[in-house]
Amino acid sequence: MPQGVPLTVPDDGLTTKQRRNRPLVMVHTGAGKGKSTAAFGMAMRAWNQGWDIGVFQFVKSAKWRIGEQTVLERLAELHDTTGVGGPVEWHKMGSGWSWSRKEGSDDDHAADAAEGWAEVKRRIAEERHDLYVLDEFTYPMKWGWVDVDDVVETLVNRPGRQYVVITGRHADPKLVEIADLVTEMQHVKHPFDNGQKGQRGIEW
Amino acid sequence: MPQGVPLTVPDDGLTTKQRRNRPLVMVHTGAGKGKSTAAFGMAMRAWNQGWDIGVFQFVKSAKWRIGEQTVLERLAELHDTTGVGGPVEWHKMGSGWSWSRKEGSDDDHAADAAEGWAEVKRRIAEERHDLYVLDEFTYPMKWGWVDVDDVVETLVNRPGRQYVVITGRHADPKLVEIADLVTEMQHVKHPFDNGQKGQRGIEW
Repeated sequence: MPQGVPLTVPDDGLTTKQRRNRPLVMVHTGAGKGKSTAAFGMAMRAWNQGWDIGVFQFVKSAKWRIGEQTVLERLAELHDTTGVGGPVEWHKMGSGWSWSRKEGSDDDHAADAAEGWAEVKRRIAEERHDLYVLDEFTYPMKWGWVDVDDVVETLVNRPGRQYVVITGRHADPKLVEIADLVTEMQHVKHPFDNGQKGQRGIEW
Repeated sequence: MPQGVPLTVPDDGLTTKQRRNRPLVMVHTGAGKGKSTAAFGMAMRAWNQGWDIGVFQFVKSAKWRIGEQTVLERLAELHDTTGVGGPVEWHKMGSGWSWSRKEGSDDDHAADAAEGWAEVKRRIAEERHDLYVLDEFTYPMKWGWVDVDDVVETLVNRPGRQYVVITGRHADPKLVEIADLVTEMQHVKHPFDNGQKGQRGIEW
């Protein structure tokens, strides 16, 4: 139960209100479950506040997160037809980025990931969205497909009021360093340990 | 990226399919963020599969999780009007349980929590929902308002195919013992550390 009570008041020249409204970079990392689920739960909450949401999935599986995608697309429709909530765009690398002429190229994940990041970077420069969900984005960074220093610099210098949440294991220390909020999901006990496989409604 | 590959195959007399479809008790604990958010993200996914969802919030604040509540209520409406997704009921202790004659009694949280658990227990016996979100339910257990042994026995012996997710810090070891999936959200870095307060769209 967060109490909303600061432990210390920093000497940063900002008023409490300015500090309160500072846009955040958030990272969900660790080997446990809930990293992406918490990010999409956050998107659901942001939608309710009327925020413009852009989701970018840096994974190849088409099945992955289909439940969240369907729900957020329905919420986006509700926004488009009734004005309630905010708009949502959902882009995924797996089926080929929607803005790209290319089909999802099974043979060059590195190029696809770099293309995804280049688009996110353009949108950040244009202040296109209020909340960016960069799902599983730690992996292309870890594998060297996307330059960590470029990501860090882009996030630190992003204009306006743009929130970014990045999910995935093995978050780079440079990313953790510049993030405002970092949560590590730790695996304590998991049904896979007992030979259980993923379940519909739980895993996707 | 969960791979869905069992590390070991247990000697429990179940087929892989039976094991795969075994309903789960899930616990999100730890001092970090994302415990409730991941549970509500899970509810969003379950809704999309047409599951019947019951949310029970064992907290007093009316502001708390209002974003998720609004979104899930809109999804419930969408279900009621179009048949898409599943039904959702959202009950909270803070404003007085909806099934109770009593106003939310500010003076007796213990009795309110016990009443909430008694209702959940009745519903589990009746197999009322497919997914129960028992938000912040670790606290009444920790404070002795709800008997941990009763919870454990009820969950272990629950009939049919009912999933339960419990959130909150300090999950009792007996609960962890009988849970199928336990994730500990660890606080690595948090804006409250730097004097920042909760933000609309992020905290609620």
